Amino acid sequence: MARLTSEKLAQAAALLADSEIDLWLTFVRETSDGGDPVLPLILEGGLTWESALMVSKTGRTVAVVGNYDADPLKASGDWEEVVPYVQGIRDEFLNQLRALDPQRIGINYSLEDSKADGLSHGMFLLLAKLLEGTPYAGRLVSSEPIVSRLRSVKTPAELARIEAAIRSTERMFAEIGQFARVGVTELEVYEQVHRTAREWGLGFSWDPAGDPIVNSGPDSMIGHGTPSATIEISPGHIFHVDLGLAKDGYSSDIQRCWFVPGPAERGIPEDVGEALRAVNDAISAGAEVLKPGVEGWKVDQAAREALVSHGYEEYLHALGHQVGRVAHDGGSLLGPRWERYGDKPMVPVEAGQVYTLELGVTVPGRGYLGLEEMIVVEPNGVRWLTERQLEMPILQD
Amino acid sequence: MARLTSEKLAQAAALLADSEIDLWLTFVRETSDGGDPVLPLILEGGLTWESALMVSKTGRTVAVVGNYDADPLKASGDWEEVVPYVQGIRDEFLNQLRALDPQRIGINYSLEDSKADGLSHGMFLLLAKLLEGTPYAGRLVSSEPIVSRLRSVKTPAELARIEAAIRSTERMFAEIGQFARVGVTELEVYEQVHRTAREWGLGFSWDPAGDPIVNSGPDSMIGHGTPSATIEISPGHIFHVDLGLAKDGYSSDIQRCWFVPGPAERGIPEDVGEALRAVNDAISAGAEVLKPGVEGWKVDQAAREALVSHGYEEYLHALGHQVGRVAHDGGSLLGPRWERYGDKPMVPVEAGQVYTLELGVTVPGRGYLGLEEMIVVEPNGVRWLTERQLEMPILQD
Repeated sequence: MARLTSEKLAQAAALLADSEIDLWLTFVRETSDGGDPVLPLILEGGLTWESALMVSKTGRTVAVVGNYDADPLKASGDWEEVVPYVQGIRDEFLNQLRALDPQRIGINYSLEDSKADGLSHGMFLLLAKLLEGTPYAGRLVSSEPIVSRLRSVKTPAELARIEAAIRSTERMFAEIGQFARVGVTELEVYEQVHRTAREWGLGFSWDPAGDPIVNSGPDSMIGHGTPSATIEISPGHIFHVDLGLAKDGYSSDIQRCWFVPGPAERGIPEDVGEALRAVNDAISAGAEVLKPGVEGWKVDQAAREALVSHGYEEYLHALGHQVGRVAHDGGSLLGPRWERYGDKPMVPVEAGQVYTLELGVTVPGRGYLGLEEMIVVEPNGVRWLTERQLEMPILQD
Repeated sequence: MARLTSEKLAQAAALLADSEIDLWLTFVRETSDGGDPVLPLILEGGLTWESALMVSKTGRTVAVVGNYDADPLKASGDWEEVVPYVQGIRDEFLNQLRALDPQRIGINYSLEDSKADGLSHGMFLLLAKLLEGTPYAGRLVSSEPIVSRLRSVKTPAELARIEAAIRSTERMFAEIGQFARVGVTELEVYEQVHRTAREWGLGFSWDPAGDPIVNSGPDSMIGHGTPSATIEISPGHIFHVDLGLAKDGYSSDIQRCWFVPGPAERGIPEDVGEALRAVNDAISAGAEVLKPGVEGWKVDQAAREALVSHGYEEYLHALGHQVGRVAHDGGSLLGPRWERYGDKPMVPVEAGQVYTLELGVTVPGRGYLGLEEMIVVEPNGVRWLTERQLEMPILQD
């Protein structure tokens, strides 16, 4: 991990140098359950008491932490100064702040980006109280410009971990293709994935209660539903799995489909083949316009229009989200300009970001045909991280 | 899980009925990474878009959530009304709020209790924006009186899970007693615990990078340090492990010690025996005054004075914290009135809360002798959940 956190702290200093923020302050406590999502990027392990992790524009790194938390930070080598306290953080924190004397202090809140919004409201009020009567009380600004980019632009160590998670997920899909059979329920597929993930020592990219999403046939609950204990894979069904696996703290998010021929069917029927082409054309149309500088809504629009031109209904979500520590990694989005997406579709795409490209259509009487690929944005366009699904495999009976 | 969430929602309604808050609002988004820590008490699975989960004083439960999140909430049976939205939460949320028309709306922030502080500052600002121009903008108060007690007072389903986690942890300590030998490093013990936990399908009660804490001898890093790859269990050492394991979402937190006799030693030497008695007397002194209504600092003081009366230095932490979904579960604390503990030591203890009782002393030349037990507060005093360590087992060579 040391390489990853030191890469990210160096990246943070570079982002600060390029911004109007003089000091980036991550202010946290009791991080073992619901801490700031930026923390794992800059620190191995957790923190118990109120802790101030500071990175200055000049690259100086200072941590003021409770006495029992100090040794691992010192051992990491990432922090130039680790200042422990016993009874309360106030004195040491204000001392360090005076020494750095920042004009603008970036703190981790954001209306738009949940992953740059790790400061709790109570901790914000506590910070305001600590700074009362000092000149720093009036110098707090959102660190979103730093944290959002820090999270979304991946370093080499991060990309390597995401690609490792994708390889494991592709192996898991191969297992699913062996296990899934006519008569097997959605829930049985879900449980088999969990058994195998445990065996392989892998985690999940979102809440394991809903990962993977498993859908077979027209009566399945599409979206973020739970797999059914009664719906069985049956002749005529499209069988669809949305799966994210996590490895060494980084995630994948991939959708794959299979077809189960009906009694009188050989191969892929026309309605399923046409849906597959439409979904893939839409994904390709999005990928084609996806490059640094483009606003995400334009990428979504290209895919959306390609799908509609095939005569299908629009999908009711975004074409793509960023992937990193979790499946929905925050930051700019390849999505329509809907209220619920806020400003995220209007933020220009950057090189080094990892996105999904995902959409699907309902094929009447057969089920949901959805695909989800993953790409990394490079200077001239996308590099596919997944091996695209262009054919529809047949589930053997 | 359904039994647990329905028990907790019923408990929330009872707490509301007994409070000045008319409506409890949990306002969250993207909960798969760093969501509100109260969420798993009232909901299975996660939520993607902005979501408003509301419990009224009369026990009415209403959830306004993104369309793809609606089905699992409906399926849980816990929510009387599940209102899905597609483009944005504003209209449906305000409709539901007007129908409930609360005078005081409790939202999840707290300066004192990190586990009642799950609303991010960005989400607070977003909520304020949604409520702008409505009478509800001025009716927001902290839900801490509800959330803190909801989390800390355990229901039967929660207690059963904590006791199951404790049984697994005691089995793990038996394994450690078999595995730990002269010449084995701290890191090897740590790694063996992780292998076994994976085999048993157990999680950890705090960040796995620092769980368990393993210390052998006088040169080990005490506190929240990482296990050493070079320090070996050696003759003359006290060998100490602080371990928390999680099962079905609930945690344990226990410390145990062993002694490794030096070349000329048989049995437990006087300095180690005296330290063991002092630590146990202090734990007993704390347990004796621990009952509903007492303020936590008095429990800590009783233990602290008992330890000092044996001639040892005070411990630099609190005697006990609550345990539940994680090891440090927030809420009232059995700790000294130090700045860093805020008001937590002054909140009266309640029946149904689960606490650790933990402290230790350094025995010069031998290492750290620390013990940590777990109790549940009952109407007339404590019930021990752990089997107390009153003797010092000898690690065989």
